Amino acid sequence: MSTRIGILGYGNLGRGVECAIRQNPDMELVAVFTRRAPETVSILTDGVAICPVAEAAQWKDKIDVMILCGGSATDLPTQTAEYAKYFNVVDSFDTHARIPEHFANVDRAAKEGGHIAVISAGWDPGMFSLNRLYAGAILPEGKDYTFWGRGVSQGHSDAIRRVPGVKNAKQYTVPVPGALEAVRAGENPELTTRQKHTRECYVVLEEGADAARVEEEIKTMPNYFADYDTTVHFISEEELLANHSGIPHGGFVIRSGVTGWEKENKHVIEYQLKLDSNPEFTSSVLVCCARAAHRLAMEGGVGCKTLFDIAPAYLSVKSGEELRAGLL
Amino acid sequence: MSTRIGILGYGNLGRGVECAIRQNPDMELVAVFTRRAPETVSILTDGVAICPVAEAAQWKDKIDVMILCGGSATDLPTQTAEYAKYFNVVDSFDTHARIPEHFANVDRAAKEGGHIAVISAGWDPGMFSLNRLYAGAILPEGKDYTFWGRGVSQGHSDAIRRVPGVKNAKQYTVPVPGALEAVRAGENPELTTRQKHTRECYVVLEEGADAARVEEEIKTMPNYFADYDTTVHFISEEELLANHSGIPHGGFVIRSGVTGWEKENKHVIEYQLKLDSNPEFTSSVLVCCARAAHRLAMEGGVGCKTLFDIAPAYLSVKSGEELRAGLL
Repeated sequence: MSTRIGILGYGNLGRGVECAIRQNPDMELVAVFTRRAPETVSILTDGVAICPVAEAAQWKDKIDVMILCGGSATDLPTQTAEYAKYFNVVDSFDTHARIPEHFANVDRAAKEGGHIAVISAGWDPGMFSLNRLYAGAILPEGKDYTFWGRGVSQGHSDAIRRVPGVKNAKQYTVPVPGALEAVRAGENPELTTRQKHTRECYVVLEEGADAARVEEEIKTMPNYFADYDTTVHFISEEELLANHSGIPHGGFVIRSGVTGWEKENKHVIEYQLKLDSNPEFTSSVLVCCARAAHRLAMEGGVGCKTLFDIAPAYLSVKSGEELRAGLL
Repeated sequence: MSTRIGILGYGNLGRGVECAIRQNPDMELVAVFTRRAPETVSILTDGVAICPVAEAAQWKDKIDVMILCGGSATDLPTQTAEYAKYFNVVDSFDTHARIPEHFANVDRAAKEGGHIAVISAGWDPGMFSLNRLYAGAILPEGKDYTFWGRGVSQGHSDAIRRVPGVKNAKQYTVPVPGALEAVRAGENPELTTRQKHTRECYVVLEEGADAARVEEEIKTMPNYFADYDTTVHFISEEELLANHSGIPHGGFVIRSGVTGWEKENKHVIEYQLKLDSNPEFTSSVLVCCARAAHRLAMEGGVGCKTLFDIAPAYLSVKSGEELRAGLL
């Protein structure tokens, strides 16, 4: 069974989905929907329609799963529920605090439309969430830690770019090695925000800008930097492009807990990601969730799901027999 | 909803299940079944029946899930299918090559009995298998590696104890650090058996035994040691008891793969376990699978399942709302 995919929104994430589809022989890209003028958008795959987003609903019988590749701030809160009326949909909604509300809206729309919607797929939320769930179910008496990085935070990079005098910037979130080691050793430390992560900023100044003032403004910026140990490196635009144009990310989910009648035995479960491309990894998760969404829909399923609600076998192209013989 | 649990077989694993039940307020231990004379068996929990295994079937309306804590060599191949006639069951069957056959037998019996059976729960098979599945679904173009250790292999320790002149022994399986580092770096090395793990043996000799001959016999033992770099340490019985009486284990599942139109981006997914007690960790997985088995059965499910077939949320005591608000 092949799954016909539509991509809605063609930025880094949409392009990542397009690349991931090529790596999965059971997936077929049939159309890309864009808010830009379609003739100005060029994609990588030959023979795929590029359509204005307003025409999406007309494709409802030609697409098995629509992957929504917009942003969590303004696109997905309305798009996912809207398109769940016409399609099985998958999104990577990642505003953790608003997930319950998003779930409720999308669940209602998907049930009305008779479709499956998978939300918040990716790595955090996504694979990190799954690992928090599994580890907590196995070791009910324990403590969870999530560390992010070393990797580029788009939100923090944008915040630096808004400081007057800054021409360009890239911000890396970096786990504190000592904190990570203490957690791994099962010491269950209490860690403040400052003790878990540091922030490294690579900044290109506008001609004539005051470096000391810019540095001070960055380091004291509330929410973004004030609670962290932040270092600011001023570099040239050439150096930024040469050494900081990638979007790597990753991180660690660690749970340490105890078992035994006297809680005498300690266990540490660690899940770690090292990603050259944050959006391409997220896209790869979206594509296997699209496979699951299609299968769930074929079985008559409706409503909103997260990775928590999907039996792992639905994500894999392999059959139950193949999985049991080869991977169990 | 509380789940009434029976334990069949009271060795390390059965005792581990008993301890894990105490850590899960929604789980209740109601009876332990043993092949020994019940009056010779003492358990940790007050007020729980200890019964001869022959009486198990009489408990079929008083137990929601029977956790089978026998061995994979001779117990589980017959027990799991047998008890699936009367109960929802969970086992930790770990003979990888015979899983398809075990699954087929248990599936037939569970369907006839109208029950849910979860087989091969634990960490390998179990959590390691899940991680192989998820990582392979996300990164279809890549390579899987599983390393075990540092930990005690019961089978290899037993093999050493069968060598004439050996009074007692403990064997540790140890991943080769350089191999692990190459895999983590995404180098996708081709590794032979010898390049992945070494074997460390701590051996207590019988009075007057020939150490050189014993060492030679261990190191050249086919299947167990001949394909590995093996070191043999002769120690006193006191030292063995003092320093090697635990049963720690653990290991690593690592997949490295590529994404991007030109496969230009590399990603490494790593899952790692560090366990003070191998059987207690396995038991903890069995207990959350018992929760899932009970829920699946309440929904009318029947037949054999593995962790591949169970939506993660079924393993957790938390509701869907709590999971989405707190862990996603």
